[in-house]
Amino acid sequence: MIDLYTAPTPNGWKVSVMLEETGLPYEVHPVDLMKGQQKTPEFLALNPNGRIPVIVDREADLTIFESGAILIYLAEKSGRFMPSDTKQRMAVLQWLMFQMGGLGPMMGQANVFYRYMPEKIETAIQRYQAETARLFGVLDGQLAQNEFLAGDYSIADIANWCWARTAFWSGVDREPFPHLNRWIAQIEDRPAAQAGVKVPVDISELLGGSEAKNKAETFVRGARTIVTTGKDD
Amino acid sequence: MIDLYTAPTPNGWKVSVMLEETGLPYEVHPVDLMKGQQKTPEFLALNPNGRIPVIVDREADLTIFESGAILIYLAEKSGRFMPSDTKQRMAVLQWLMFQMGGLGPMMGQANVFYRYMPEKIETAIQRYQAETARLFGVLDGQLAQNEFLAGDYSIADIANWCWARTAFWSGVDREPFPHLNRWIAQIEDRPAAQAGVKVPVDISELLGGSEAKNKAETFVRGARTIVTTGKDD
Repeated sequence: MIDLYTAPTPNGWKVSVMLEETGLPYEVHPVDLMKGQQKTPEFLALNPNGRIPVIVDREADLTIFESGAILIYLAEKSGRFMPSDTKQRMAVLQWLMFQMGGLGPMMGQANVFYRYMPEKIETAIQRYQAETARLFGVLDGQLAQNEFLAGDYSIADIANWCWARTAFWSGVDREPFPHLNRWIAQIEDRPAAQAGVKVPVDISELLGGSEAKNKAETFVRGARTIVTTGKDD
Repeated sequence: MIDLYTAPTPNGWKVSVMLEETGLPYEVHPVDLMKGQQKTPEFLALNPNGRIPVIVDREADLTIFESGAILIYLAEKSGRFMPSDTKQRMAVLQWLMFQMGGLGPMMGQANVFYRYMPEKIETAIQRYQAETARLFGVLDGQLAQNEFLAGDYSIADIANWCWARTAFWSGVDREPFPHLNRWIAQIEDRPAAQAGVKVPVDISELLGGSEAKNKAETFVRGARTIVTTGKDD
């Protein structure tokens, strides 16, 4: 049994989607970010960085933080979604790292300045939305010539998909990227992906549809406390 | 023989330090970021994301981008700086991911707003400097109880060290973090680390010492063209 400490964010979904895909048994422990549960002594003992997700593999007596490391672990444990051939495996790892070091951080910063920061700083909003769109273009180019990012469907797709699907939240238009949209829709059709992004709760109403704008604004008012401003934390 | 396409940045140094540590033979191909050489068709054929570093392992007929993926590849190729035991290896990978998804992106954004962005936006500067200091605190806590981040000296140390040593460039004071400073000094003593951070050119005069402030300002005036503002790129 694997304990999953998570919250409804792209980094959390990466792990819940992977667990659903592999069928490994897991138990969800929701971490309420608004209440600061990721900064409690109990949680910091699991991850000194105070971030979700974390897994504890009870049988292996192993605690792992950082979603990218967890994906590699679960791929190796299950023998799925990461090829063993060196060349193919390195292709998967490089596109996983593209998400970890690029798409995730840049969309995360777009979210901070577009959604959460009370002060609207146009220069910062434009920077991160432009960088996100540029990265969408890189994915779109790769997906124009390949069904998935690196060979068969893999942890690279899971990681990038969990972020790219939240373009609305970052205020970035996905319409100019047809291959990216084809790929997003294709993964959306997977039952495991559908199940994984409802863990620990379903927040799909915030990410699209006619009510998303109003619901997003309400959500953001409650969430501003979790943003690092450098003034109060 | 390994071809290394690189520039004098923390992400580039990660790979040149690792190559020096392993003793694998390599040939340096400097990429001039100011001249936009990372966006030429030739370079985009190596990495569609237009970022250094990239390696080409000629014997293996393998091209890899993303510094984190390259470090894993070189550790596996050389059999060094990443343990084979699952528990120890996952500890290394999670601290590598901590750098890829946390320390690198946050220091990178601090650099953009503190150094490169012509407009001085205090809210953004404070956010990223505070986040960098918070991450230094996480490293400091880990290094208070451990000589290195995850067992023996590993790719996790190489990756985090290459960024943490540039605290001056991000405008973040390292003084409150004695264990981090002990570890930085310890790795600085390694001949391979000293050699690696001089690839492709030695820019140490920008990172500290009495002349660093003036030299940094001159450098920044030439480097502003490479910052994504969302207005012209």
